[in-house]
Amino acid sequence: NSVFIDCTADENVAAMYGEILSKYVSIVTANKIACSSDYTYYQKLKSIAGEKGVKLMYETTVGAGLPIIKTISDLVLSGDKILKIEAVLSGTMNFIFNEIGPEMPLSNAIRKAREIGYSEPDPRVDLSGTDVVRKILILAREAGYPIEKDEVTVNRFLPDKCFEGDLNDFYKKVKEYDTEFEQKRKELVKQNKKWRFFATLDQGKARVELLTIGPDHPSFNLEGSNNIILFTTNRYHELPMVIKGYGAGAEVTAAGIFADLMRVVNI
Amino acid sequence: NSVFIDCTADENVAAMYGEILSKYVSIVTANKIACSSDYTYYQKLKSIAGEKGVKLMYETTVGAGLPIIKTISDLVLSGDKILKIEAVLSGTMNFIFNEIGPEMPLSNAIRKAREIGYSEPDPRVDLSGTDVVRKILILAREAGYPIEKDEVTVNRFLPDKCFEGDLNDFYKKVKEYDTEFEQKRKELVKQNKKWRFFATLDQGKARVELLTIGPDHPSFNLEGSNNIILFTTNRYHELPMVIKGYGAGAEVTAAGIFADLMRVVNI
Repeated sequence: NSVFIDCTADENVAAMYGEILSKYVSIVTANKIACSSDYTYYQKLKSIAGEKGVKLMYETTVGAGLPIIKTISDLVLSGDKILKIEAVLSGTMNFIFNEIGPEMPLSNAIRKAREIGYSEPDPRVDLSGTDVVRKILILAREAGYPIEKDEVTVNRFLPDKCFEGDLNDFYKKVKEYDTEFEQKRKELVKQNKKWRFFATLDQGKARVELLTIGPDHPSFNLEGSNNIILFTTNRYHELPMVIKGYGAGAEVTAAGIFADLMRVVNI
Repeated sequence: NSVFIDCTADENVAAMYGEILSKYVSIVTANKIACSSDYTYYQKLKSIAGEKGVKLMYETTVGAGLPIIKTISDLVLSGDKILKIEAVLSGTMNFIFNEIGPEMPLSNAIRKAREIGYSEPDPRVDLSGTDVVRKILILAREAGYPIEKDEVTVNRFLPDKCFEGDLNDFYKKVKEYDTEFEQKRKELVKQNKKWRFFATLDQGKARVELLTIGPDHPSFNLEGSNNIILFTTNRYHELPMVIKGYGAGAEVTAAGIFADLMRVVNI
């Protein structure tokens, strides 16, 4: 009853999963790479785990310790159909859009997220949507939709030129958009609306985009770097099921890893 | 690998669990009686299941198919400590307090809940808090607090005399409070507040009561007969983890039973 625990974000480690599972070793991972790679690799890992009677656990890849993946898995296992997922899955992005204001232009909010350690070393991994695309892919596949990365529509809210060049270039370029963002933000405040960086799965199509929402939306009061996930299913239809809480951070991720491990061991 | 499924609310069936588990048969149950009975019986069932290597699953006893009990269990298993639970666990009561208004006095809202099939045949089982007491007991125990039923403080919002006599008496008596409730309700509307029937576990003490909450509270927009549960733990501290959704109904309960069954079978 051996378990391999992957707390890296390393591609090379993710590439070893097939071999590890083949040797009757379960895997508990917080690394999103394997489950958001080519669908065929993902499927192969699932089938090796099934054949060998070992587990591949990745609850912490989305929302850290929040019970998201096992909830989808339980719904699907019990014959429900996931019709729609609407989610704020990036604590970093939620933090940035909660922080910006008259005294805190976009570029400073991004720097702050980096300084606190919320964002990746290169915050463009968060800002470009790459991280959220991986997460919605993992959820979509868990829900039974065999989606590939390039099928996810990403609407970036910063022009492409911000994502070229090095990090110093980036901070210089993004500063150019501070005024424009502050103007838009003031408009939103007048309308009592807020920005949220959403991942959506709807009718089998996934997209990632910056949306504006009003006070009636459950994500309006999404504090700090919290995550929120809304599931609309055949059974949770008129009103979706909602899960909300810290979706990142060393402590809650470690706890989620440990819970996954206990579930493997308990069997 | 046999499983006994209990979809009754029967005391006699619940009394058989010890014997069933002893015979190496797992139990999946929506019946709250066993897990909210004497703590010693609850503990005995858990230890028999452990000894015999079978499962006792009761996710649907609280919040139907919502992932509540397994979330607590995972948190505790991974070394977290549940500091506080705040929950609206009665779909019936939430429905009633969402329905009452100028055209719908309390007594009519109770009748409507009964007619739609939301309440027990005798709605006093819901109104007295009996059902919610059972639920908070189950959650408290899962969180590691060995609480007994008579240690739960219940603040009823109707006088004792309403709970004496037969059902016809009850409907007559409760009508006397319609005017008083409508006055209070109008007051609340002025203050932009709402009633919610809450179960709370705080510092090891459990209580059930009617509270008034403002628009900042996550339960303010708790529609229809939905449930909501807030967990404050060592790790989810500044901001609690929140789970919200349909917490009752044949379909979501059946789905939860089936998910529990799949979890037993999968092992």
